[in-house]
Amino acid sequence: MADDTELTIRPATEADLPEIVSMLADDPLGAARESPDDLAPYVEALKRLTDDPHQHVMVAVRGERVVGTLQLTIVPGLSRRGATRSIIEGVRVHADERGTGLGTRFIEWAIERSRQENCALVQLTSDVTRTDAHRFYARLGFTASHVGFKLAL
Amino acid sequence: MADDTELTIRPATEADLPEIVSMLADDPLGAARESPDDLAPYVEALKRLTDDPHQHVMVAVRGERVVGTLQLTIVPGLSRRGATRSIIEGVRVHADERGTGLGTRFIEWAIERSRQENCALVQLTSDVTRTDAHRFYARLGFTASHVGFKLAL
Repeated sequence: MADDTELTIRPATEADLPEIVSMLADDPLGAARESPDDLAPYVEALKRLTDDPHQHVMVAVRGERVVGTLQLTIVPGLSRRGATRSIIEGVRVHADERGTGLGTRFIEWAIERSRQENCALVQLTSDVTRTDAHRFYARLGFTASHVGFKLAL
Repeated sequence: MADDTELTIRPATEADLPEIVSMLADDPLGAARESPDDLAPYVEALKRLTDDPHQHVMVAVRGERVVGTLQLTIVPGLSRRGATRSIIEGVRVHADERGTGLGTRFIEWAIERSRQENCALVQLTSDVTRTDAHRFYARLGFTASHVGFKLAL
């Protein structure tokens, strides 16, 4: 259950992976594409991410418990006068914590961190079926200005 | 004019920036947000990009002339069993070259490079107003499965 224990947002570590992967899998879209019983590919991926200064894989922790995760990627670019942008991916909030404002605090953290890294733009894509998420991002000031295309390889 | 001189796709260098920025600005959306008369911010941004092994700023060159540009970013991640994805940004084809198949060859290059870097997914966003571009990406196999949100800082 959500409680009023203080919430901390900090970089993810290998010890957080069971709880992170459990959240990635606890989702209508994620259930089919994650492997909570085999953490090896996630351990390897987290190493690559932790070694990259443009990557921030974060967890939200309440008390001792991981209750949220997101990935913020800093992407330099040429367009918009050499603007740097940030991309938010893999946002998950534990089922018990929905409606507590954690999602808002987490995205606000990502926006603030993007400002500190001199980003001109924060962007993300959300599956067309996640209409609750679309309303959530609109409330936080995001504009649904783009179509997001994906190609599986 | 487009001709049948051989087309080369190679990493962008500082010497290409006047032609790259001219293409970024030659666009209904880009005109207002680029500064072709002041290349300094682009020079600085290209340095950051060139130093980052996950960034590929490319140009398409026909003869001696730069006729296209795109940026491919390799983004490791935790979701989808630690899958790496790639993101295509800043695609521009010179006005004289539209309809020559350059766009297709360029995106196919990006897809092939993404495979070489073991990406499981290629993604991009396109402004909702660019309906021609949406048809183009759909023809290349991309699915318009997501809504793209942006927040200017």
